[in-house]
Amino acid sequence: MSEARVTKENAIDFATHPDRYRHWRLSVDGAVATLALDVQEDGGLRPGYALKLNSYDLGVDIELYDAVQRLRFEHPEVAAVIVTSAKDRVFCAGANIAMLGQSSHGHKVNFCKFTNETRNAIEDASRFSGQTWLCAINGTAAGGGYELALATDHIIMADDGSTAVSLPEVPLLAVLPGTGGLTRLVDKRMVRRDRADFFCTVTEGVKGGRAVDWRLVDEVVPRSRLIEVARQRAEEFAQRSDRPRGAKGVELTPLNRLIKGDSVTYDNVEAAIDRDAGSVSITVRGPRRALPADAAGIHAEGVAFWPLAVARELDDLILHLRFNEPEIGTWVLRTEGDPDLVAAADALLLAHADDWLVRETVLFLKRTFKRLDVTSRSLIALIEPGSCFVGTLLELALAADRSYMLDGTFEDSNLPPPTIRLSGMNFGPLPMPNDLTRLASRFLAEPGRVHALAGRLGEDVDAAAAEELGLVTFAPDDIDWEDEVRIAVEERASFSPDAMTGMEANLRFAGPETMESKIFGRLSAWQNWIFQRPNAVGEVGALKLYGTGKRSEYDRKRV
Amino acid sequence: MSEARVTKENAIDFATHPDRYRHWRLSVDGAVATLALDVQEDGGLRPGYALKLNSYDLGVDIELYDAVQRLRFEHPEVAAVIVTSAKDRVFCAGANIAMLGQSSHGHKVNFCKFTNETRNAIEDASRFSGQTWLCAINGTAAGGGYELALATDHIIMADDGSTAVSLPEVPLLAVLPGTGGLTRLVDKRMVRRDRADFFCTVTEGVKGGRAVDWRLVDEVVPRSRLIEVARQRAEEFAQRSDRPRGAKGVELTPLNRLIKGDSVTYDNVEAAIDRDAGSVSITVRGPRRALPADAAGIHAEGVAFWPLAVARELDDLILHLRFNEPEIGTWVLRTEGDPDLVAAADALLLAHADDWLVRETVLFLKRTFKRLDVTSRSLIALIEPGSCFVGTLLELALAADRSYMLDGTFEDSNLPPPTIRLSGMNFGPLPMPNDLTRLASRFLAEPGRVHALAGRLGEDVDAAAAEELGLVTFAPDDIDWEDEVRIAVEERASFSPDAMTGMEANLRFAGPETMESKIFGRLSAWQNWIFQRPNAVGEVGALKLYGTGKRSEYDRKRV
Repeated sequence: MSEARVTKENAIDFATHPDRYRHWRLSVDGAVATLALDVQEDGGLRPGYALKLNSYDLGVDIELYDAVQRLRFEHPEVAAVIVTSAKDRVFCAGANIAMLGQSSHGHKVNFCKFTNETRNAIEDASRFSGQTWLCAINGTAAGGGYELALATDHIIMADDGSTAVSLPEVPLLAVLPGTGGLTRLVDKRMVRRDRADFFCTVTEGVKGGRAVDWRLVDEVVPRSRLIEVARQRAEEFAQRSDRPRGAKGVELTPLNRLIKGDSVTYDNVEAAIDRDAGSVSITVRGPRRALPADAAGIHAEGVAFWPLAVARELDDLILHLRFNEPEIGTWVLRTEGDPDLVAAADALLLAHADDWLVRETVLFLKRTFKRLDVTSRSLIALIEPGSCFVGTLLELALAADRSYMLDGTFEDSNLPPPTIRLSGMNFGPLPMPNDLTRLASRFLAEPGRVHALAGRLGEDVDAAAAEELGLVTFAPDDIDWEDEVRIAVEERASFSPDAMTGMEANLRFAGPETMESKIFGRLSAWQNWIFQRPNAVGEVGALKLYGTGKRSEYDRKRV
Repeated sequence: MSEARVTKENAIDFATHPDRYRHWRLSVDGAVATLALDVQEDGGLRPGYALKLNSYDLGVDIELYDAVQRLRFEHPEVAAVIVTSAKDRVFCAGANIAMLGQSSHGHKVNFCKFTNETRNAIEDASRFSGQTWLCAINGTAAGGGYELALATDHIIMADDGSTAVSLPEVPLLAVLPGTGGLTRLVDKRMVRRDRADFFCTVTEGVKGGRAVDWRLVDEVVPRSRLIEVARQRAEEFAQRSDRPRGAKGVELTPLNRLIKGDSVTYDNVEAAIDRDAGSVSITVRGPRRALPADAAGIHAEGVAFWPLAVARELDDLILHLRFNEPEIGTWVLRTEGDPDLVAAADALLLAHADDWLVRETVLFLKRTFKRLDVTSRSLIALIEPGSCFVGTLLELALAADRSYMLDGTFEDSNLPPPTIRLSGMNFGPLPMPNDLTRLASRFLAEPGRVHALAGRLGEDVDAAAAEELGLVTFAPDDIDWEDEVRIAVEERASFSPDAMTGMEANLRFAGPETMESKIFGRLSAWQNWIFQRPNAVGEVGALKLYGTGKRSEYDRKRV
């Protein structure tokens, strides 16, 4: 029996609640919420560093992510969110440097990925949820602090002679702004590239009128009027929102998660780790009872509504495995359940797409599948008898690096041959970070195939047909199944994890690019490279020497 | 006096000639040229490795680049080029592994960049020069061998039971295919991502009908008919070409280059290195005599035609500085000459755009400026009295990370204040790797500005107006000039070269992406990261152990 290496005690846990926040103050006043950063210096997730100047570590960002989720689900009345600082002279100093200096390469990379995803979720709220985020900068916003502001849709800065925005990572720390800053500067705010170049090399940053002229912030106002103007803008945004003022929110109650030995179990999702194989089998179960009949029924179920429950559980599992199980390099994706019930769930999601809770649920599913897309683990989907790869759950197979579907039955089982089924959920609501559906990404060469597939909505497709339609990679029969699948998983474990990561990041995103795909593809790749370089992380690298008063001696060679 | 560190003797030299090729056989038969790879095992650029199985090092690729250039300029009659192997059982085994294992990180990165640029140049010929490249694979095409084929527009493979295409880098070497392979697979040939995933993990590759079905090659033919079919396809492509069969080519005679101490001098380009500052001043001189009157005059001048001469010299200098001067991190770009003569040259290029030689010259200028865009050195343009930043040469300032233009005159000089001038060359013929003009990239936020600028073609714009129009970053006057410029260059030298590289790569390419920008931005960044990882380059990394029979023990942690 293998020993559990991750327990409830030593794992990084992503569950929290506003009552337990140590670093953020969340307040709601009518349609406007305020999220004020007030980092507790000695409240770091790990010992060994002090979170000075509203700097953050993963723990601070876990609370931010929790707030983002609760504002969407628990507060349908909130149509605008003001991010600001509860401290007097500093907005946010960004990611804590001592923490970064002490972190492993893998933790740094995953920390940046998670913070990026949270900022993308903020933009997703502004764009799709009728919940516009804005930022009131009342003190220095440096590095990750300014990047947090960049994730909002409107940045107001105090014009008090000292408040400034800056990205001092390059000159001070020899790394890049790690949370989308460079990309958002030139792609979202479309700051002219030469000005961006200057800005990113000026430690003290830019303030006042120049910050507006250069498009770094949207407006500057006297310090005394900052909160008033922010509130006013928030009300303006809120007025344009379609979020229902009088609706009742859905409380995000704690997940029913059990970590025991090498298994992680939720109500609808289960993971079984095979440490020797370096893989984990992830099974998503379909609904086990009839779906609600209408929107009222969905609201009555709340977090128990199957699609929402699956999104929450899968989301938590992805984060758990990324941070706590780095050596488990291959994720084997399975489903189990009644295809008709999954189809019924999809039908509900599509029929009530205008309902705020359904909209939030679908957007959450979208973000969760996007997390899979950018997860640096090999994803292999297995479509077996008893599975329910229908619509939303079929996205698991389409997100996988490859998929195997059994052609026929297993000799020792009386379950019928597996089938898969397309639903409307495969044709739009769940785009990848490149903004294409997984089907469109898959059939870049033959877009006509996507059209043709739309004609087969709701049809049960067997392995031979699925292979012919291009929906699965391989369709071995009972005789070949075990060997083919075993070899695929074993092989994966024999390859260099780094080469896998690079390969997958390049093959998964053909076609057009978006800000998100650029952040995860280009910016993160360069940052990860820099995170390996002695100039940053060597004994006399900038990250190690920061705060010591010593100066790095850089290897001057360019590449 | 500082000592010359690079001499004619120890520098990597990019000059060669078909008469001196050691690795390629170039033959021309009417409209069809054949370029056959026949690598001389003991002909490596450096000692210490044998170029077995038609594997290549930089020296092999320098010859390929030379052939690409000569086919375009010296052979206007050539409308199709067949790439094949002169060896019996192997097409090409890709980049030489022992060479990679012995190379510094910087050399590996620059080697990959240069080989990528040459493959892009092959695609540029197929797309814009009426010179279609195709590939006849007559033996194993592995890794860089298949990537070379991918750069051509039509791939024909022998169906002989053993000839196959493969990208075995990931399973064998723990690195990525480094020359655009992953991107071209999914973005150019639009191979389905799950098939690409499988293909990139199968050491032996794919052959025969499956290679066609999976879009890896365009056709397979019996070995006995390979050359005949390739010739036939080449003739078909050639028939659709607009290249002039009867025209006389322009011989690419040796450049008049002098490396002396810390200076590199050509007829029209000059570089002066300041080793203490870690910078080089690059001055491009405008024409020193009247331009030819018409197309006939251009042809009569041949390589002496100023735009062509500048492209060749700048191209050579960029490569020289990248490979031989890695510690010179900042390139200061200047021009000197008569603005009217540069304008006259641009007018000629635009008026005779349909002439094959003019077309080639403009395409070469385009490729050369693209080299600047993807060069990992800081680029600072200085616009001073006596300069001629007009049209084509203004692209130097627009390609720079930032530019300084003197507002007024220098106290100790009687030269008038500098001006800049737009020409039609700034509005289309010289796009960046992202396929936008540098003006369009610059003004992503305000595309209307590009339109407005088109109304100022030919106008001399002084510093104040240039700043107002957004064409330069800063316009200091005589009093501030020296300090501002000195600080900019000094500061640059004080930053981490790696952070600079990452920052510039992210800020230079806002907006849309293309295959080229993906190759240099995403793929190369991941490859550079992997090139630093112990799993690839550590003492027991795959690159070090390859060929020893020992097996790498990978650190299994994913990021």
